[in-house]
Amino acid sequence: MSDLLRVARTHTLPSFLSGQTAATTKPDGTLVTEVDRQAEVAMRKWLGEHFAQDSVVGEEGPAMHGISNWTWVLDPIDGTASFGHQVPLWGTLVALRYDDNSVAGACELPALDLGAKGTIQNAHLLIQGHEQEILAHPSQCRLQDATLATTGWDYFRMAGAEEAYVNLAHKAGRTKGWGDCYGLWLLLAGRVDVVVEPLLHPWDIEWVWPLAQASGIKLTDWHGRDCAAPRQCIVSHGGPLHDEVADILQPHALDNL
Amino acid sequence: MSDLLRVARTHTLPSFLSGQTAATTKPDGTLVTEVDRQAEVAMRKWLGEHFAQDSVVGEEGPAMHGISNWTWVLDPIDGTASFGHQVPLWGTLVALRYDDNSVAGACELPALDLGAKGTIQNAHLLIQGHEQEILAHPSQCRLQDATLATTGWDYFRMAGAEEAYVNLAHKAGRTKGWGDCYGLWLLLAGRVDVVVEPLLHPWDIEWVWPLAQASGIKLTDWHGRDCAAPRQCIVSHGGPLHDEVADILQPHALDNL
Repeated sequence: MSDLLRVARTHTLPSFLSGQTAATTKPDGTLVTEVDRQAEVAMRKWLGEHFAQDSVVGEEGPAMHGISNWTWVLDPIDGTASFGHQVPLWGTLVALRYDDNSVAGACELPALDLGAKGTIQNAHLLIQGHEQEILAHPSQCRLQDATLATTGWDYFRMAGAEEAYVNLAHKAGRTKGWGDCYGLWLLLAGRVDVVVEPLLHPWDIEWVWPLAQASGIKLTDWHGRDCAAPRQCIVSHGGPLHDEVADILQPHALDNL
Repeated sequence: MSDLLRVARTHTLPSFLSGQTAATTKPDGTLVTEVDRQAEVAMRKWLGEHFAQDSVVGEEGPAMHGISNWTWVLDPIDGTASFGHQVPLWGTLVALRYDDNSVAGACELPALDLGAKGTIQNAHLLIQGHEQEILAHPSQCRLQDATLATTGWDYFRMAGAEEAYVNLAHKAGRTKGWGDCYGLWLLLAGRVDVVVEPLLHPWDIEWVWPLAQASGIKLTDWHGRDCAAPRQCIVSHGGPLHDEVADILQPHALDNL
């Protein structure tokens, strides 16, 4: 996976640092940059050369069906809004499925020199080149004292979940717009208490599942049900906080509407 | 001012990089770290040695009344929540008043190697050591296409302005939690369209005024009135967007309540 992240980085980081980050809006309202597309083409090419029999699912191109049991799930630039505004809180995401199960994942935030990687057996952070094991300890932290991270109000609006945002943020100790993969990275690092997102694709979140399995992180949908790739997520280190958030969000879950 | 920023940086950056960033909550609900206090003591000491006749106003200590016409306005760590969570979006702020008028200002985000400085005559960005003149051009951008930056929902809650947040964010193209001085820096750099904050102190915002005067940036209160240190700000590059935001926020302005 490190090789695959490196392939993406050779496209993304020079463009970011030189300010060539103009983004266009896709039909679904999300953003994409030319660099995003180029990076995914390069990642698919590398996979074609090294794992030609595997399937590939990616944000910027059609699914490619292989003949092995393995599927690579790619997002060359997660946090395109950050990338496009020359804000360093974006990253590259890779998950690897065996049959339908996500068994390994990795994330890299090249502009901050941060990352995380793991399998369902073990998980590590990467902080400026230093490895650190990820270990989640459920705490007694309650929502009124918690730091909640989420990408932005717009995604709640797109999901028809503005009321969910208001109900949740009104009760949270602190609500921060440290979102996309950076919010998830902060959660893995224990620097925020809970991440909530209202509108996800598998390539946004599936990389977290193996790391969560290995470390004790809790990753659920808005009903509080364990899920490898929820459309709406709650991620925390466990404890009463997770249930408290699920209680607030459950009435607003997409499959309730 | 560069010397004063350097004095602060020798305290803040090593603590940030080594993770010694634990924060405590002040009586007003905002955060402070021990490093914050130490940095302000060092900044005041430096001013005492070099500008002993001037007055000093700072976030973490009592106002000191000098005998000259000059007043230094200090915030050693703006974005304490970021600092405390080891998120690099914090900075040091300095403004300089002559009589009651803010005439020079500077901002430095040491963990991102970004800054801005200026007087009422000229204003520059600093991007990884490179200087770039700040020039605002009013655009025809409307709110529905604009990127709005603000520190966080919590500050609207503290100001009793949750409804203002909802009304504004509901209509904005994109709402991002790139806040504190980083949001203002992004605005000066033309990377976001408008910054809105509901609860400011003079040391949070006054450094922007001279740079705004020099570059054509519009800095007003929620009524849309030009102001060097508004308690609630709208900052933009001018044009119809600014008025549109003021129309939404004016009914929620503190002095209307």
